[in-house]
Amino acid sequence: MIFATLKADGPDGQLIAVSKDHKRCLKIEDPVSNLLGAAENWDRIAEQLLAISDQLANGDGSSLDMSKLASPMPRSWQWLDGSAFSTHGDLMQIAFGLDPIDSDRPLMYQGVSDKFFGPTEDVTLPSTEHGIDFEGEFGVIVDHVPMGTSAEDAMAHIKLIVQINDWSLRAIAPIEMKTGFGWVQAKPACSMAPFAVTPDELGEGWKDGRVCLDLDIDWNGNKFGSANGAAMDFGFHELVAHAALTRDLVAGTIIGSGTVSNPNYAEVGSSCISEVRAIEMIRDKGAPTTPFMAFGDRIRMEGRGLDGSSPFGVIYQKVVRASL
Amino acid sequence: MIFATLKADGPDGQLIAVSKDHKRCLKIEDPVSNLLGAAENWDRIAEQLLAISDQLANGDGSSLDMSKLASPMPRSWQWLDGSAFSTHGDLMQIAFGLDPIDSDRPLMYQGVSDKFFGPTEDVTLPSTEHGIDFEGEFGVIVDHVPMGTSAEDAMAHIKLIVQINDWSLRAIAPIEMKTGFGWVQAKPACSMAPFAVTPDELGEGWKDGRVCLDLDIDWNGNKFGSANGAAMDFGFHELVAHAALTRDLVAGTIIGSGTVSNPNYAEVGSSCISEVRAIEMIRDKGAPTTPFMAFGDRIRMEGRGLDGSSPFGVIYQKVVRASL
Repeated sequence: MIFATLKADGPDGQLIAVSKDHKRCLKIEDPVSNLLGAAENWDRIAEQLLAISDQLANGDGSSLDMSKLASPMPRSWQWLDGSAFSTHGDLMQIAFGLDPIDSDRPLMYQGVSDKFFGPTEDVTLPSTEHGIDFEGEFGVIVDHVPMGTSAEDAMAHIKLIVQINDWSLRAIAPIEMKTGFGWVQAKPACSMAPFAVTPDELGEGWKDGRVCLDLDIDWNGNKFGSANGAAMDFGFHELVAHAALTRDLVAGTIIGSGTVSNPNYAEVGSSCISEVRAIEMIRDKGAPTTPFMAFGDRIRMEGRGLDGSSPFGVIYQKVVRASL
Repeated sequence: MIFATLKADGPDGQLIAVSKDHKRCLKIEDPVSNLLGAAENWDRIAEQLLAISDQLANGDGSSLDMSKLASPMPRSWQWLDGSAFSTHGDLMQIAFGLDPIDSDRPLMYQGVSDKFFGPTEDVTLPSTEHGIDFEGEFGVIVDHVPMGTSAEDAMAHIKLIVQINDWSLRAIAPIEMKTGFGWVQAKPACSMAPFAVTPDELGEGWKDGRVCLDLDIDWNGNKFGSANGAAMDFGFHELVAHAALTRDLVAGTIIGSGTVSNPNYAEVGSSCISEVRAIEMIRDKGAPTTPFMAFGDRIRMEGRGLDGSSPFGVIYQKVVRASL
């Protein structure tokens, strides 16, 4: 099943189910009308959602206007972002002379969840002096996960898969990191690609709790990276279990993979500027040459299905100066 | 004005306004029926709230049953906790041999906001091996704060003041802190005292964006601490501005002071076990003697008004093993 959200009066938008070719849609209005509500009632409404999906498969539905789409989940009670690609972590540590982080346990922080930018919305930030960077990621959305759920049991709680741009401010990040308290200022609101899909939509692209697809990234029209999501050190089910050790995860919790990053970065590129700068620092034994983003810059991100399809649709956004 | 929340069917409970003697209450049902809704519509409904407050002052209202109270805000989109008492930070750093943290900027992390335990609710945690600890704090609730709001302007966005127990798991905390990503497992859901009050309710107890009141803490019936909230290095308005540098703060955002801690801790005691253990380690040049909490332990926290009153009411809770 494929879901998206039309911009609407309320902050949660209007949930729609979308046909496999992304051309048609049907509104979902009762008993829930947004994706957060769907996550809260997943098992209870699963049959109904399947019936709507069947209607779409039979050719029903109205034409989908991509320009009307918000983030599939415009807000949630909880956003927990992992950092599950060790290549990314290793490069950053070498470049910045950080102590190696114990890698026996997943890395994770809690970020802004009250707002996820839609796929084509301008992203407003206050200053380029903060070192504006993108981070291409995959993510999952769970229903209610009881405290203490095992990784094995967590798999069944993963109801939807999404694609995320975790906006990051690199001039602030190391200052906050040094405190041990994690990021607040360095991690403003994220963006989400238009479609949230059930795992079965990815076919063999969903394996061992990993999104085994390339994430194509273009920055101002120039190819930047196509790293693959299979290289996660921990699967999403393990990230879910990690998060749920001492808390119930509220339905609709979004859990991110962290920047998609591969050991063969020389061939496939990267999913954030900071990693490229780290590679430059290591390679050239000096200062990095790639700058961070400027206002007016555009970023495009698109996960590639194994059949060349675009299961999550495209994030295509411009960074603009916030009017403060 | 004094607000509380009755347990009700929905997750946000039923908002009530409470008389100054905490004996009577009036339901608030239209146009909002919970405190999150009130924060979202504060300016629009301020007159109406004042009218209800006047009704209470005139003797209206039904009898308040304290046993029916949930957290005044049972959930919110965002919980950002500061650590604004440098005595606490200094003690922890010395005891654990941590590098001093740059204190020019407020410390802050984002924690679970989808659940705040009510004032007398049992607190369920999975294991005493995690080092269960309380943290007595004050906090504020803001309406919508635009990105880039100054500390000066932030003051007017502080609509309510609350008292919080920030549950902490000390065996996990340093492991997560070392990663720089902040706490996820080490910070389960917090608890909130029954009453959320407008700043004017504290009289001279609200000054320079600080709650200048003693926070009385008893652990299993033994006096543990009475530190005063005036000693914050940064006022709440400064914490709000810090949080809003790169994000809009969604209405209903709760911002915490961090563990209330005073330089004269030898006289006034502490607001968390971990600080007492740090003091023991420094004093005795050895292992701490005070253990963390056991299942069945009870914690009581009560902020003291300047007139001896109890503006936030009492947190009185038992820690119990979660049934996993």
